[in-house]
Amino acid sequence: MTGFQAAGAGAFYGDAGLGGDFGLLSPVSASPLVAALTGDRAVLAAILAVEAGWAAVLEQHGLAPAGSAAVVAHAADASRYDLADISRRAQGGGNPVIPLLADLRTQVRALDTANVGANGVGALRAVHTSLTSQDVLDTALMLVARNTVAALLADVKGTTAALACLAEQHADTLCVGRSLTQHSLPFTFGLRAAQWFHGLAAAARRLEALELPVQFGGAAGTLAAGTVLTSGSATDPFALSDALAAQLGLAAAPAPWHTSRLAVTSLGDAVGSVVDALGKIASDVLFLSRPEVAEVAEPRAPGRGVSSAMPQKQNPVLSVLVRSAALQVPGLAAQLHLAAATFNDERPDGAWHTEWPALRQLLALALGAAGHVRELAAGLQVFPDGMRRNLDLSGPLLLSEGVSAAVAPLLPAGGAGTAGSVADGKQQLQAVVDKTLQAPPAEQAATYRRLLRGAVPADRLSDARLEELLDPASYLGQAARISRRILAAFPDFALTSTEPDGNGDSRG
Amino acid sequence: MTGFQAAGAGAFYGDAGLGGDFGLLSPVSASPLVAALTGDRAVLAAILAVEAGWAAVLEQHGLAPAGSAAVVAHAADASRYDLADISRRAQGGGNPVIPLLADLRTQVRALDTANVGANGVGALRAVHTSLTSQDVLDTALMLVARNTVAALLADVKGTTAALACLAEQHADTLCVGRSLTQHSLPFTFGLRAAQWFHGLAAAARRLEALELPVQFGGAAGTLAAGTVLTSGSATDPFALSDALAAQLGLAAAPAPWHTSRLAVTSLGDAVGSVVDALGKIASDVLFLSRPEVAEVAEPRAPGRGVSSAMPQKQNPVLSVLVRSAALQVPGLAAQLHLAAATFNDERPDGAWHTEWPALRQLLALALGAAGHVRELAAGLQVFPDGMRRNLDLSGPLLLSEGVSAAVAPLLPAGGAGTAGSVADGKQQLQAVVDKTLQAPPAEQAATYRRLLRGAVPADRLSDARLEELLDPASYLGQAARISRRILAAFPDFALTSTEPDGNGDSRG
Amino acid sequence: MTGFQAAGAGAFYGDAGLGGDFGLLSPVSASPLVAALTGDRAVLAAILAVEAGWAAVLEQHGLAPAGSAAVVAHAADASRYDLADISRRAQGGGNPVIPLLADLRTQVRALDTANVGANGVGALRAVHTSLTSQDVLDTALMLVARNTVAALLADVKGTTAALACLAEQHADTLCVGRSLTQHSLPFTFGLRAAQWFHGLAAAARRLEALELPVQFGGAAGTLAAGTVLTSGSATDPFALSDALAAQLGLAAAPAPWHTSRLAVTSLGDAVGSVVDALGKIASDVLFLSRPEVAEVAEPRAPGRGVSSAMPQKQNPVLSVLVRSAALQVPGLAAQLHLAAATFNDERPDGAWHTEWPALRQLLALALGAAGHVRELAAGLQVFPDGMRRNLDLSGPLLLSEGVSAAVAPLLPAGGAGTAGSVADGKQQLQAVVDKTLQAPPAEQAATYRRLLRGAVPADRLSDARLEELLDPASYLGQAARISRRILAAFPDFALTSTEPDGNGDSRG
Amino acid sequence: MTGFQAAGAGAFYGDAGLGGDFGLLSPVSASPLVAALTGDRAVLAAILAVEAGWAAVLEQHGLAPAGSAAVVAHAADASRYDLADISRRAQGGGNPVIPLLADLRTQVRALDTANVGANGVGALRAVHTSLTSQDVLDTALMLVARNTVAALLADVKGTTAALACLAEQHADTLCVGRSLTQHSLPFTFGLRAAQWFHGLAAAARRLEALELPVQFGGAAGTLAAGTVLTSGSATDPFALSDALAAQLGLAAAPAPWHTSRLAVTSLGDAVGSVVDALGKIASDVLFLSRPEVAEVAEPRAPGRGVSSAMPQKQNPVLSVLVRSAALQVPGLAAQLHLAAATFNDERPDGAWHTEWPALRQLLALALGAAGHVRELAAGLQVFPDGMRRNLDLSGPLLLSEGVSAAVAPLLPAGGAGTAGSVADGKQQLQAVVDKTLQAPPAEQAATYRRLLRGAVPADRLSDARLEELLDPASYLGQAARISRRILAAFPDFALTSTEPDGNGDSRG
Repeated sequence: MTGFQAAGAGAFYGDAGLGGDFGLLSPVSASPLVAALTGDRAVLAAILAVEAGWAAVLEQHGLAPAGSAAVVAHAADASRYDLADISRRAQGGGNPVIPLLADLRTQVRALDTANVGANGVGALRAVHTSLTSQDVLDTALMLVARNTVAALLADVKGTTAALACLAEQHADTLCVGRSLTQHSLPFTFGLRAAQWFHGLAAAARRLEALELPVQFGGAAGTLAAGTVLTSGSATDPFALSDALAAQLGLAAAPAPWHTSRLAVTSLGDAVGSVVDALGKIASDVLFLSRPEVAEVAEPRAPGRGVSSAMPQKQNPVLSVLVRSAALQVPGLAAQLHLAAATFNDERPDGAWHTEWPALRQLLALALGAAGHVRELAAGLQVFPDGMRRNLDLSGPLLLSEGVSAAVAPLLPAGGAGTAGSVADGKQQLQAVVDKTLQAPPAEQAATYRRLLRGAVPADRLSDARLEELLDPASYLGQAARISRRILAAFPDFALTSTEPDGNGDSRG
Repeated sequence: MTGFQAAGAGAFYGDAGLGGDFGLLSPVSASPLVAALTGDRAVLAAILAVEAGWAAVLEQHGLAPAGSAAVVAHAADASRYDLADISRRAQGGGNPVIPLLADLRTQVRALDTANVGANGVGALRAVHTSLTSQDVLDTALMLVARNTVAALLADVKGTTAALACLAEQHADTLCVGRSLTQHSLPFTFGLRAAQWFHGLAAAARRLEALELPVQFGGAAGTLAAGTVLTSGSATDPFALSDALAAQLGLAAAPAPWHTSRLAVTSLGDAVGSVVDALGKIASDVLFLSRPEVAEVAEPRAPGRGVSSAMPQKQNPVLSVLVRSAALQVPGLAAQLHLAAATFNDERPDGAWHTEWPALRQLLALALGAAGHVRELAAGLQVFPDGMRRNLDLSGPLLLSEGVSAAVAPLLPAGGAGTAGSVADGKQQLQAVVDKTLQAPPAEQAATYRRLLRGAVPADRLSDARLEELLDPASYLGQAARISRRILAAFPDFALTSTEPDGNGDSRG
Repeated sequence: MTGFQAAGAGAFYGDAGLGGDFGLLSPVSASPLVAALTGDRAVLAAILAVEAGWAAVLEQHGLAPAGSAAVVAHAADASRYDLADISRRAQGGGNPVIPLLADLRTQVRALDTANVGANGVGALRAVHTSLTSQDVLDTALMLVARNTVAALLADVKGTTAALACLAEQHADTLCVGRSLTQHSLPFTFGLRAAQWFHGLAAAARRLEALELPVQFGGAAGTLAAGTVLTSGSATDPFALSDALAAQLGLAAAPAPWHTSRLAVTSLGDAVGSVVDALGKIASDVLFLSRPEVAEVAEPRAPGRGVSSAMPQKQNPVLSVLVRSAALQVPGLAAQLHLAAATFNDERPDGAWHTEWPALRQLLALALGAAGHVRELAAGLQVFPDGMRRNLDLSGPLLLSEGVSAAVAPLLPAGGAGTAGSVADGKQQLQAVVDKTLQAPPAEQAATYRRLLRGAVPADRLSDARLEELLDPASYLGQAARISRRILAAFPDFALTSTEPDGNGDSRG
Repeated sequence: MTGFQAAGAGAFYGDAGLGGDFGLLSPVSASPLVAALTGDRAVLAAILAVEAGWAAVLEQHGLAPAGSAAVVAHAADASRYDLADISRRAQGGGNPVIPLLADLRTQVRALDTANVGANGVGALRAVHTSLTSQDVLDTALMLVARNTVAALLADVKGTTAALACLAEQHADTLCVGRSLTQHSLPFTFGLRAAQWFHGLAAAARRLEALELPVQFGGAAGTLAAGTVLTSGSATDPFALSDALAAQLGLAAAPAPWHTSRLAVTSLGDAVGSVVDALGKIASDVLFLSRPEVAEVAEPRAPGRGVSSAMPQKQNPVLSVLVRSAALQVPGLAAQLHLAAATFNDERPDGAWHTEWPALRQLLALALGAAGHVRELAAGLQVFPDGMRRNLDLSGPLLLSEGVSAAVAPLLPAGGAGTAGSVADGKQQLQAVVDKTLQAPPAEQAATYRRLLRGAVPADRLSDARLEELLDPASYLGQAARISRRILAAFPDFALTSTEPDGNGDSRG
C-alpha cells in the first residue's frame, strides 16, 4: 500500500480543478448533439428563453416598459452565465431559477443602463414579474423536451425509412422464426424488419401526438400576481399564458398544471416507448450478429467496436449501447410517475425535484440511442445465406405444424371417417414427430420424410405435394402481406427521409 | 424455543390444505369486485372466452363444423375447470393456455358426443385451430383489461363528479396554499378539489381513448396456419382477426403485434397515470386530515379505521390504502416497459412472462384504489373553520407578494422616480418583511401593518386600501375561474353519475 | 359482436363463485411448496403462531393465567379461519391482524369455556395483550421469511453442489469465452460452471448470515402497554421481547425497529441477490441451448417445454421462467427500499402497507426460481462437441492476444532492438490480424498462419512452438485454478447435498 | 411565435460552446465535494490510478522495466487529459478505458523518451499489460466508491453524533407518537431522535463492513495473458491481483468476479440503505416543521430556503433535497440488480454498461444527501412547546390504551368477577371512549374524565391515581431505556465527531 490511498480525496484528485461531467460513464449519450439539446447549458438557455419570452409578452401587452423585452433578450444569452456557479448556488433555494434570476437581474440592470442611458427603460420590471420558479422551470423543461423530441423524431424517421427498405428488399429472404429461443416456423427477414418498423413507428406516432404545454400559475397556481399585474389593463391573465405559449411554440394550457403532472409522465411514457422499440431491435441484432448465428452484422466504422485486449474482436457496440439505454429508461419513466403520485400540496416537498434529473436523463438516453439505431438501420449488413443455414438446422420438422394441418385430413381414420378424425390425424402425426425426434439429428430429415410417406397413401398425397409441404418457402403464411400492411399503416414513417443526416453528427 | 420452528414447513402449516390467495397482504385490492375482474378465475374465463369466440368465428366462416361453436361455448364455462391444477401444470409449458387447452379439449370431446350422438359434430376442429398460446393469452388479457378499465372508469367518474361538486360548493372557501410544506398564498378549497379533478379527469380521458386490440398471428406471427386453414375458402385470414375482435368487443389489429408491445405498455401507462392522480389526492387528504391540520376528514364507516391497540384512533384508512397502491404502481408499469424493451425474437425468452403478473396486479391495485377514492370523495368531511385557522397562522405576511406588487410602485424612490424604482420598492418591502420576521411571532401581524403603514404615505395608500391588501380573500387571483375552466374542459367528468354505486360493493 | 361483451362483469364471469388466486399468471412460482411457505394461508398461520407464541411467553412469565397458552395455541390453528373473509375485512383497518384478532378472540372464548368449564381460565387475557398490529405482522413476516429462506437455501445448496460437480467434470472441456456477444478467448465449461457457482454461493452466504428479528414495541414503539403489564412483576419488558424471539426461533431485537426497516430491506436485498445469480445462469443457458449454439440443453421431463402449436419444439422452460423472475425481483426489492425511505412518523401512512405484497412476492419468486435452477443444474445436458465446434468458428485468430504477447518480443525491430520494441511488435502483429481479416472467412486460418510464419524468423519461433501457440488449449491461463479457488472459498456449498430432493415436489 | 423556436437547436443554443454538466438539475448533489469524489474527473483519475498502480505492481515483480512505474505515474495525472474528448470517443468502443488508454500511451511514450533519453526505459510495457477494460473500470469504480463511502461515513457519523446529543437532551421532552397520521400515544422527542440514529447507524455499520474488491481477470477472466506474462518468472498471477489490491487499498479477490456482481449490488444496497435512513429523517422533519405543526425547524443559513416569488417563505430546503434523493435511489440500486441478473456470457451485451451511471449517480446522491442531513442534525431547532401543544390536542383520550389496561381489572364485572372480566372491562372502557367521542371536541377531555370517574368506584381508583393515569408523562413506557439501548448498540456512532466539518464545504 502506497501513500496513494492514505491521502484524502483532495490529494488524490490533485489540483486539476473541477470540470463538469461529459458523459464519461454514459457512452450511449455522450454526443455533442445530445449535450447541445439536453445538457445543463441547454437547460440554462431554456430557462433564459422563458424569461425572455415572458418579457416579450409583457411588453406586447403594455405591462412592461417599451424596449424592455429587447434588453432582457440581450441579457438572456446563456453564455453570459457561470453554469457551475449557478448549479452550486441552486442548493440554497433548491432550484436553479433562483440564482439564475439574481444574475439575470444584474445583467439586465447593467445592460439597461448602458444601452439606453443613465436611467434605462426600466427593463427590470419585465423580469419574472408574476411568475414563480415552477412556471419557469416547468416551461423550460418543456422547451428542452420539445427540441429533443424533434431531433429524436428525425432520427426515428431516418430509422423507419431504412427499415422499410429492408422490409421490402428482404420480403422473400427466408429465415427462421424463433420463440422462447427455439425455432418455431419459417419467417422472412423482411417481416422481421417490418415488425421492428412497426414497434418504432407506432411508438413515435404516439410521441408526435404529444402536447407539451406552457406553465403559468404564479406562486400558488392562482394567477394572483398576474391578476394584480393586469388589473386596470384590458388583458386577461389567461391571455398572458396563451401568449407565452405562442411565443415559445408550446401548447397552451387551459389552467395551471402545477400539481397535475400528466404532461410530464406522458412525455416520459412516450419517449420511453420509443426506447422500448429501439431496445427490441438492439436485442435482436445482438443475437443475430453473434458468430454462431451470423445473420446480420452492424455497420463498420473506423475505431468502432474495438477491444482494449483482443485485437480481432469487432463488438456490436451500437446495439450494446442501445441496450444499455433500454435497460435504464423504464426506471426513469417510473421515477416520473412516482413523483406524480406523491405530488403533495400546491407544490411538493421533494417530488418535483425528482422529476428534473429523471426527465433530462431519459431524454438524453433516448436521443443517444435513436442516433445509434439510425446508423445501425442504415448500414445493417444482412446475410441471407446465414439465415438459410440456420433455418435448415431444424430441417423439415420445422414444418410439422403445417404438415399436420394439411395432412391430418388425408389420413385414414381408425374406423370410418368419423367426426374427430382430424384430431385423430393430428395425434398420428404427432406420433410421427415423436418418432422422428428419437432418430439421430443427422437422420431426422430423412426419417421424417420416410415416416410421413408411409403414413399417408400416395393417392391422397403425391410425392410432389409432400415435397412442397416440406419446403419452408411454402409455409410463410401472410408474411409479405403483414409487412405491407404495417408499412401502409404508417406511411409517413416509411418514406425515405430527405434530411441529410440528422443525429449523424452525434457520432462525428 | 419450542418444537414449533424446528419442525418443517409441513408440520408448521398443518394439514389445512393449500388454499389460494385472497389478498390478505394487499388490502387495497382485496374486494370481491377486484377479484371478480382481475383474479385467476377472471383470467381463466377470459382465456375460455377467447377460445369460444374463436370457435364462433370459425363456424361463421364455414371453417368449423356447424354446431361446434355451441359445443365449445358450453365447454368454455370457467366453473368446469380446476384453477389450482391448471396453475400448477402451467409450469410445464410455461403458460396456462397449454394445460387449459388439454382440459378444454376433453370437455369438448365429452360434450360433443353427449349432446349430438355417438359421433358429435366434430367440435374439436373448432378448438384453437391456427392459434398460438400468445394469441390467446394476449387477447384474454386485453379482455380482462377491457372489463377492468370499464369498472375503473365508472369509479373515476363517480369520483370526479363528487370532486366537481366540492369544487363548486367550496369555490369561496378560503384556505392556504402550500409549497415545499410552507404557506405560500391564500387559496380555496374549491380550487384544490378542482385540481384533484383535473389530474384525475385528464388521466382518465387518456385511458378512455386507449385501444385494446385483438391478437392473431399464429405460431410465428405469420398467419401460416390460418392461411392453410382458409386456403380453398373465400375467407381472408385477416378477416378472421377482425371477426374475432368484433366477437369479443376488442379493437381490430392491422397486423399481429406479438413483439410490439405498445398496447400493453400504453395500457399500463394510462392506468398508472390514473393511479398517480389518485395518489396525489390521497397524499393531500392524509396531510389535511391530521389532527394538527384538521381541514378535512375521511368519511366514517362502521369498522373502518380502527386500531388493534388504540381504541380512540380513527385512521384515514382509505387514503393510506390508496397511497400504498400509488407507491407500487410505477414499478409495475416500469416492469411492462422493461419487458417490451427486451422482447427478443418472435417470442421472447422470459420478457413476455413478466408482463402477466405485472399487468394483472396493476389493474387490481388501480381498481381497488379507485373504489376507495370514490368513497372518499363522495363522503369527504370538509372543515372550513380549520382551513381558516391554518390560513391565519401566517397572518398578513402571507400577502407580502401581493402587497409588494401593489405597493412597490407607490413608494417614494431613493432619488427622483428613476427607472428601476419598482425594483427598489420591492427591495424596501423585502426589508419590511425581514424586519417583521425578527419580531416574535405573536407580534408579527401588528409589526407588519405598522411598518407598511410607515413606509408609504397615506395619500398614496389609504388605510382602507391597506386593509384590503391584507385581506386574504382579496388575493385569490383567478382561483374561481381556474376551477371553472378545469371543469369545463372535462364536461363528461363533471356530471353527477347516475350509476347507483359502482365499485361500492367492493367494500361491502 | 355477441351478447358476450355487452353484459356486465357479473354476467361475464358467471356464478362460478370467487376462488382465490393460485398463480395462473406466475408459473415460475406456482408450486405447492411455494404456496405452502408464502401463500396467504402461510401468512395467516404465521400471524397465529405469533399470537400463540406471545400467549406462551405471557403465561411463562406469570402474566397470563395458567392454561391460557394452551387454549390460544389450540385456537391458533389456521384451518379454523376463513381466509377470504379475513382478507376482505382487512380493508377496514388496513391490515389483516385486526379482523383475524376478532376471530381469534371468538375462538379462544369458545374453546376456553368449552375445555375448562363454564368460566374457563381467562385465556383471553393472553391474546395480543400489550401488542400492536405492527408487532404481530412484522414478526409474522419474519417467520414466513425464515421458513422460506430455509427452503431457498436448501435449493441453492442442491444447485451449487451440482454446479461444483460440473465444474470438476468439465475442468478441461474447451469452449469459447464471450464478451459483448463476440468470441474473446478460449475458456472451459468447467470455469463457466464455477463462476455460476461463485455468484450463487456468494449471494447465498450473505443470505445465510442475515438476522431476522422479532418485533415488539407496542402501539407507539415505547413498550408503554408492556410496561403497565409487567409493572408489579419481576419481568422486564425487554425480556418479553427476547422470550418471544426464542419462542419463535427469530433473532432478538435490542429495541423496537418499527421505523428502521433495515431488517426488511436487507432481507429483500439478500434474496434478490440470490435471484440475480439465478438469472445470470438462466441467461447463459437460454443462449447456450439455442439450436444455433447447442452447447447445453435443459433436462427433459414429461410434459415440459411443449408448445400449443408447434409439435417439434422443446422450449427451455426452466430458464425462461427463472429469467421472468429475475426481471421482476429488482423492482420488488426497490419497493422495499422506497417504503423504508418514506417511512414517516412512528408508523407511516402507506409505506408500511407497500412492504407486504412486495416482500411476499419476492420470496415466492425466489423460491420458485431456485427450485427450477436446482432441477436445471442437476440435469443439465452438456455437449462438449458443440462447444468445440463454436470455439473453432473463430479459428486461430481467437488466440491473437496470446500470440501477440508471446511473439512480439521475438520480432525484428524496425531499427536496433530499441526500447518500445515490444509495442512496435504488437503493432506489427495487429497489422497481421488486420490483413487476415480481409481474407475470406474460410481462408483466414491459413492466412493467419502464413502471415505469422512470415513475420518471425524460424530461429526465433519454431513451427512446433507456433502450432502450440495456435492451440486453444494452450491459452486457458488459470482457468482450472480459478475454478478450484472458487469452490474452495465456499466449501459448504460445494458438497453434494444429502437431502433427497428439496423443492423437487414443487414441480411434481 | 417568433423566430426563436423555428430555428434549429444550433441557433437556439447559440455559439456558447458545449460545457459539461454541473448538477443544475440535481441540487441535492451539486457540491464541490460530491463533484470531486464522483464526477467524471474523479472517475478518470481513478482509471489512471489503476493503470499507474498496475505499472507499479509489474515493476515490483520484475515484469516491467525499472523506472517504468515512475513514468506511468507521471503520465497518470488526470489534468493531462481532455475529458470531453475522451467521453465522446468512448462511444467507439463502448467504454472510456479504450480512448483513455490511447492517450495514456501517447503521454507515456513522450515522457519516457523525454525524461530518460532517446530510448527511454520502455515504460509502455508497463501500461495495461495483461489487463482488460473491465479489470480497469471495475477496479476504478471500486476506488471511486471507496473514497466516496469514506466521505459518506464521515458525514453519517457527524450526523449520528448530533442525533445522539438530541436523544439525550430530549429524553424527557414530551411529544406525541403518530401512526397512520393520527396520534397514537405519548412519545418523546429524544426517542424519535434515537430512532433516527438507529436507522442511520445500523445502515452505516453495514456499509462499513463492505468489502470493495480489486478486479483482475484479463480478457475472458482466465488470467490467460497474465499467465503468459508471468511464465518464466517466479510470480503467480494471483499474486499480481493481490499486489494491485494492496497497492490501491482495496480488498483482494480470490477469483475474478467479471460476471458475479455481488460486490456492485451490495455496494448499491448498502449505500441505498443509508439513504433510506436519511429519507426517513427528512420525511419526519418536513412534517414536523410545517407551520401547523411547528415542532422543529431547519437551521437557517444565508440565502437558504428563499423563494423566487414569496418573500416571507423559509422553505425546509435541506429536507426537500434529501427527500428528492431518497425517492431516486431505490430505482438506481434496482438498476444494479437488473444488470447483475442479466449479466450474460463472460462479459455482457449491455448490462455492464448500465451499472456505471447508476452506481455513480447513487454515490453522488447519497453523499449529497448525507451532507445536508449532517447540517440539519447539527443545527435542528427543537420546539418543546410546540410538541406539548400538539400532544395536548388529543387530550386524555390519547391515554385510553393505558387507562384501559390499568382500569379494566378494577371494574365491577357484569356478574360475579367471572373469567374474562378483564375483557369485559375493556369493552366497558371502549364504550366510555365511544361515548366521549360523541361529545364536542372541546368537551371531550372533561367528558372522558367524568365518565371514567363514574365507571369505577373511588375505592378502587383514587382521584390522584386517575389523574396520574391521565398524565401523558406517566405513559411513556420504556422510551428512555429504548433510546439508551439504541445508543449503546452503536457506540462508535454516538460519539461526537472530532472532525471539524466534513462535507460542510459542499454547501459553501
